[in-house]
Amino acid sequence: MKFSAKQIAEVLNGKIEGNPDITVNSLSKIEEGKIGTLSFLANPKYNQYIYKTNASIVIVNSDFIPEKEITTTLIKVENAYSAFASLLEMYNEVKLNKSGVSDQAFISASAQTGKDIYIGEFAYIGENAQIGDNVKIYPQAFIGDNVKIGDNSTVFASVKIYSDCIIGKDCTIHAGVVIGGDGFGFAPQNDKNYKKVAQIGNVIIEDFVEIGANTTIDRATLGSTILRRGVKLDNLIQVAHNVEIGENTVIAALTGISGSSKIGKNCMIAGQVGISGHIEIADEVKIGAQSGVSSSVKKKGAVILGSPAFDISKSRKSIIHYRNFDRIIKRLEYLEEKFKK
Amino acid sequence: MKFSAKQIAEVLNGKIEGNPDITVNSLSKIEEGKIGTLSFLANPKYNQYIYKTNASIVIVNSDFIPEKEITTTLIKVENAYSAFASLLEMYNEVKLNKSGVSDQAFISASAQTGKDIYIGEFAYIGENAQIGDNVKIYPQAFIGDNVKIGDNSTVFASVKIYSDCIIGKDCTIHAGVVIGGDGFGFAPQNDKNYKKVAQIGNVIIEDFVEIGANTTIDRATLGSTILRRGVKLDNLIQVAHNVEIGENTVIAALTGISGSSKIGKNCMIAGQVGISGHIEIADEVKIGAQSGVSSSVKKKGAVILGSPAFDISKSRKSIIHYRNFDRIIKRLEYLEEKFKK
Amino acid sequence: MKFSAKQIAEVLNGKIEGNPDITVNSLSKIEEGKIGTLSFLANPKYNQYIYKTNASIVIVNSDFIPEKEITTTLIKVENAYSAFASLLEMYNEVKLNKSGVSDQAFISASAQTGKDIYIGEFAYIGENAQIGDNVKIYPQAFIGDNVKIGDNSTVFASVKIYSDCIIGKDCTIHAGVVIGGDGFGFAPQNDKNYKKVAQIGNVIIEDFVEIGANTTIDRATLGSTILRRGVKLDNLIQVAHNVEIGENTVIAALTGISGSSKIGKNCMIAGQVGISGHIEIADEVKIGAQSGVSSSVKKKGAVILGSPAFDISKSRKSIIHYRNFDRIIKRLEYLEEKFKK
Repeated sequence: MKFSAKQIAEVLNGKIEGNPDITVNSLSKIEEGKIGTLSFLANPKYNQYIYKTNASIVIVNSDFIPEKEITTTLIKVENAYSAFASLLEMYNEVKLNKSGVSDQAFISASAQTGKDIYIGEFAYIGENAQIGDNVKIYPQAFIGDNVKIGDNSTVFASVKIYSDCIIGKDCTIHAGVVIGGDGFGFAPQNDKNYKKVAQIGNVIIEDFVEIGANTTIDRATLGSTILRRGVKLDNLIQVAHNVEIGENTVIAALTGISGSSKIGKNCMIAGQVGISGHIEIADEVKIGAQSGVSSSVKKKGAVILGSPAFDISKSRKSIIHYRNFDRIIKRLEYLEEKFKK
Repeated sequence: MKFSAKQIAEVLNGKIEGNPDITVNSLSKIEEGKIGTLSFLANPKYNQYIYKTNASIVIVNSDFIPEKEITTTLIKVENAYSAFASLLEMYNEVKLNKSGVSDQAFISASAQTGKDIYIGEFAYIGENAQIGDNVKIYPQAFIGDNVKIGDNSTVFASVKIYSDCIIGKDCTIHAGVVIGGDGFGFAPQNDKNYKKVAQIGNVIIEDFVEIGANTTIDRATLGSTILRRGVKLDNLIQVAHNVEIGENTVIAALTGISGSSKIGKNCMIAGQVGISGHIEIADEVKIGAQSGVSSSVKKKGAVILGSPAFDISKSRKSIIHYRNFDRIIKRLEYLEEKFKK
Repeated sequence: MKFSAKQIAEVLNGKIEGNPDITVNSLSKIEEGKIGTLSFLANPKYNQYIYKTNASIVIVNSDFIPEKEITTTLIKVENAYSAFASLLEMYNEVKLNKSGVSDQAFISASAQTGKDIYIGEFAYIGENAQIGDNVKIYPQAFIGDNVKIGDNSTVFASVKIYSDCIIGKDCTIHAGVVIGGDGFGFAPQNDKNYKKVAQIGNVIIEDFVEIGANTTIDRATLGSTILRRGVKLDNLIQVAHNVEIGENTVIAALTGISGSSKIGKNCMIAGQVGISGHIEIADEVKIGAQSGVSSSVKKKGAVILGSPAFDISKSRKSIIHYRNFDRIIKRLEYLEEKFKK
């Protein structure tokens, strides 16, 4: 697909300075711009690059005035960053605009499917599954019995959703995610064997949730493991049985949340954090990378760090002292010596 | 599926107080009980909920005597918790009772399959694979050449088992698990490149093992990586080549065990623990979350915590001092000041 | 497959001492050798085992002279270890020598495929994908639109490669790996919702790269996430958007690298390490297990440890003091007591 400066300026309601007929077929960063690509300049820190970039077209803010000669074609818009972001989205939508139901998918006779859906090759749709309008299910995905997927959601290749789980509208579930596997529940027996506790709850994912590749979300023992509206999970995260994650909370990769814990709204949890079971985290809490949270955090907006985690400013002081531990010991030894004398 | 109080009381050998004809079609926690659901009350802490629950039927201990009026139908049994657990299991067994071999699966001509098996759509069964009786292989699972799977085991969607690996009886392997990928073995060369060391061993999983979603277990370089009888692994765990994990050891999510280490029997290893290569952990050892174990733990029943991990009671003292590090430094400074004078 | 001592000696250019007609059909460690297996002895520490091993054939160094009677057949070669390693490789190549294109795979009409390839059952090859010569694509793998895979590369079962990503020559990608999922990019909005930032870049994997099971590598927002020639990644690693990993760097399991960070050449990064976003790690840096790296490491060859990580020798001293923290406090209390008096 090729687009001319004229076409792009029309979409963005921008003003061309340069060649309206020049065409681009991909996007680039301004500092890496090649011929045939479209780029943008929003941060003045990057102004220097516009004089040497090979990008054929650059979107700039309407108040940008070149200080030297420029060879690239400019499109001036009110907000270059957001104009470019809109183009990214349009580009992505076109690119991801898969449609149709493959003959090579398996769809149970009792499954219900909405309008304008995509179901790729070797996807499996179980009994009584309900697939909403505009849903995209990529090849090799597994949608278990009685699963519901809301309108406009996308399920990428080889996602596995166990039976009875519910996915909201406008969700994006990346490749390899497992939703609804059994919670890790075993009752110790007198002979040191463990007896499995049947896990018969489900997982409920509300609207506008995004889940990164190979993340796992276990079904509840009874009831539901819940991700509230707008939650964003990165890759390789573990969410255990009966956990609830509040609205718009974002969690980075390789974090694990143990069973029955409840995370508040609008929290930000960094990577490789561990959260113990059966605790509560208040709304708007921020947790630093590699922290371990072993008891409830009751203060809204608390910022914590460390393993175990505590107040970040106190934690940072401890970190500095820890680094200087050997010098501190030397100071102690010095006092001890002095005292002996 | 609907069940009446009468039917359930018969199965559980219980006594009805209320309406024997009332029916339920799902299960609930007593504090969230809705009409048409069955719940239970075992812990007196929850007694309050029985007076307001909407659950249609509640299983209670035979010695439970209501203090107020109750609208729900009661089924009295000797042990309400274990009666309910039995019902969960029955429910689960019915729900997971898939059967039949799909036309859309690929089964090598040389593979051997037992009685009463389930092989789902787009599953792949390699050459000379041996599948026992009552085995369930869900859609899109990959069973490599020469793999053996024992009776009554379940392999969920998109599990990948590389060639030559052996799975015991009564095992449950959750979606996305990879068994038998190459160990991480590379020999450094003089030119700073690495040469792959061929990994030609296998993985042996003994009976009654459960493995959580997206966990990975590498094949041995030579010989076998071994999970002994009754081992339970949570999600997203890494087990490297030539590791051996002893009977009934349980390991929580996101833990990694490096090559050739040997873990004892009946150990409990929490989440995000790291265990170095070529070490031994004694039987019945407990390791706290996010610990790093870099040398062998020889004492049976040791309980350790920290990175690196050491005795938990000592470790907990260090944690407390670490939190107060800044105050400790102030005490040191105070002494230094005093001393100067 | 059975091989006689005579056949093996010919391949290795070795000299037989014992029965040239004895046959083996698998390989073993010398301390676990069974009848019908081939083993080797290179390290004199293991000499004791050669007198009791049941291995039918043992490869030994040409200068090995038995001190007692030996029942096994010996093949003497110049370097027993490297001879055995060569045999492992040959064995592995034979075992993994899958070929042919399955009728049950889906290959887009516009895809291009090279010579002598293997495409397994239920694999999906997207539009305009380019598959090089001798490439092996195992069952249930997903190769998105416009993906390129170089000659001699192997993609194991259920690997998912999103559109536009590029895989070099002689790469090995293990089961369950996800390449090219969206980077974790969301712009906070005034109403506390997050707006997704479209991720339209790709992933470039250069030649001779190996990637372990269930590892995830996100596509760049714009431009490319890059793994340079010879990189080796273990299982369950997270590589975020726009990361670059230098030549021959090796990374162990469960490590996470945040967005836009750049790792140098020939680095060694242990397991469960976390690396913050937007930082640079110099060449030949070594990072200890469970470390957290939150700022750039500029010194080539630095060796660091801890969370946050600092110089390993200083870090080790802090670890020792931390372990003894309670005793240190007692020393401080003693001084305080003395001082009061």
